[in-house]
Amino acid sequence: MKNFKLIIEYDGTDFNGWQIQKSGRTIQGALEAAVFQMTRQNIRVTASGRTDAGVHALGQTAHFRCKTRLTTDDFFSGLNSLLPADIVIHSCQPADESFHARYDAREKTYCYYILNRDLPAAIGRQYAWHIKNRLYVGAMQQAAEALVGTHDFSAFENTGSPRSDSIRTVSAARIMSDEHGPHLTFEITANGFLRYMVRNIVGTLVAVGRCKITPADFATIRDSLDRSQAAATAPPHGLFLVSVTY
Amino acid sequence: MKNFKLIIEYDGTDFNGWQIQKSGRTIQGALEAAVFQMTRQNIRVTASGRTDAGVHALGQTAHFRCKTRLTTDDFFSGLNSLLPADIVIHSCQPADESFHARYDAREKTYCYYILNRDLPAAIGRQYAWHIKNRLYVGAMQQAAEALVGTHDFSAFENTGSPRSDSIRTVSAARIMSDEHGPHLTFEITANGFLRYMVRNIVGTLVAVGRCKITPADFATIRDSLDRSQAAATAPPHGLFLVSVTY
Repeated sequence: MKNFKLIIEYDGTDFNGWQIQKSGRTIQGALEAAVFQMTRQNIRVTASGRTDAGVHALGQTAHFRCKTRLTTDDFFSGLNSLLPADIVIHSCQPADESFHARYDAREKTYCYYILNRDLPAAIGRQYAWHIKNRLYVGAMQQAAEALVGTHDFSAFENTGSPRSDSIRTVSAARIMSDEHGPHLTFEITANGFLRYMVRNIVGTLVAVGRCKITPADFATIRDSLDRSQAAATAPPHGLFLVSVTY
Repeated sequence: MKNFKLIIEYDGTDFNGWQIQKSGRTIQGALEAAVFQMTRQNIRVTASGRTDAGVHALGQTAHFRCKTRLTTDDFFSGLNSLLPADIVIHSCQPADESFHARYDAREKTYCYYILNRDLPAAIGRQYAWHIKNRLYVGAMQQAAEALVGTHDFSAFENTGSPRSDSIRTVSAARIMSDEHGPHLTFEITANGFLRYMVRNIVGTLVAVGRCKITPADFATIRDSLDRSQAAATAPPHGLFLVSVTY
């Protein structure tokens, strides 16, 4: 049995998220269909984690196991020619038989892009959240510092999400802005993320940026463990899974 | 009679070009429909020039004349709320009654984006031409210098195009590349462009970059006035109308 590790870029715009469904276009569905075309076997392709509808990935990581004579090079070029243009395989590497893209993930990095100016964009509108109100980046950066460390992130988890515990360790969280331009990037690295965690954090950081709440309030919300204290979830199209480390 | 000057950004991906047609989505069609919704008058919106299907614009310029009490501010906000998300009005200004977006245009600048690496991109694939073969940028830059000045550009005009003459003056043409990255940009400014001229130039510059022809051959092709000497037309989705000066 061979085990293959894939690094995958996708444009989430026209997908109903990673996870295969009875109907609707999914990244997992497209990948499993392409693997089937190459192997004539129904093989599960398992990612580091699901991404929701509309969320993009620059470096999603997945694995699949199968008995095959096909090599990593065969899958790399074969999958890229079979997959639709909104999915690109960046690498296909051999992995230990025990390698598991979800269980073995040590850290993940996400970026969230915001276009902060009066006018929305036509070009690239599917890759950033447009916010008209001028955001105060200094306050957002100050608030983001409260994310770093090991915390219970219940306040930023969607209610009703099934999980064993909600304690995660964030190793880095920062806001980057163009010196004069309208683009903001929020980057966060952690050993794991709860459902909607990044988008709920971004929604609440934007409330800080709009001076609706203070950076101190942000820390209080985190400590409240109460989802109803945090702001509304940011839309999916600004979110990118950048990389997964093992 | 008032005359309004618009600066317009659009994502050409889902349009059949600028010019209104009996069927199919066009930028002119969307703009005229929005102007009709605001004025209840059938009013022609005239651009600096047509863009073809799939071509984008960051600063297309257009005008429309009408008898109305509505102000530039009314049209700026009204059109932006009525138009689809792939068209954004950047400004609406009052213009002299005689102002004409096409006849009065002095210069236009286009950019053409190329992604030069083995792998295509999923993110942003609708905004750049992916070319696998390594392009030799120095040769392309050298060839591009032959474009500057006043020349008959027949060799880069699509055959069968109706026009009075094919002499144009190019004031600037250059290739820009990331220092280490895979992105190339070709930028060209001229007092006018023939049909498919930028895309035919780019196709031929890419032949230079692939060392299929030399920079000297490029100048010879320009002088031949013969479309059949130039390379195939580059695809539309890498092309952006950046700005129009008056």
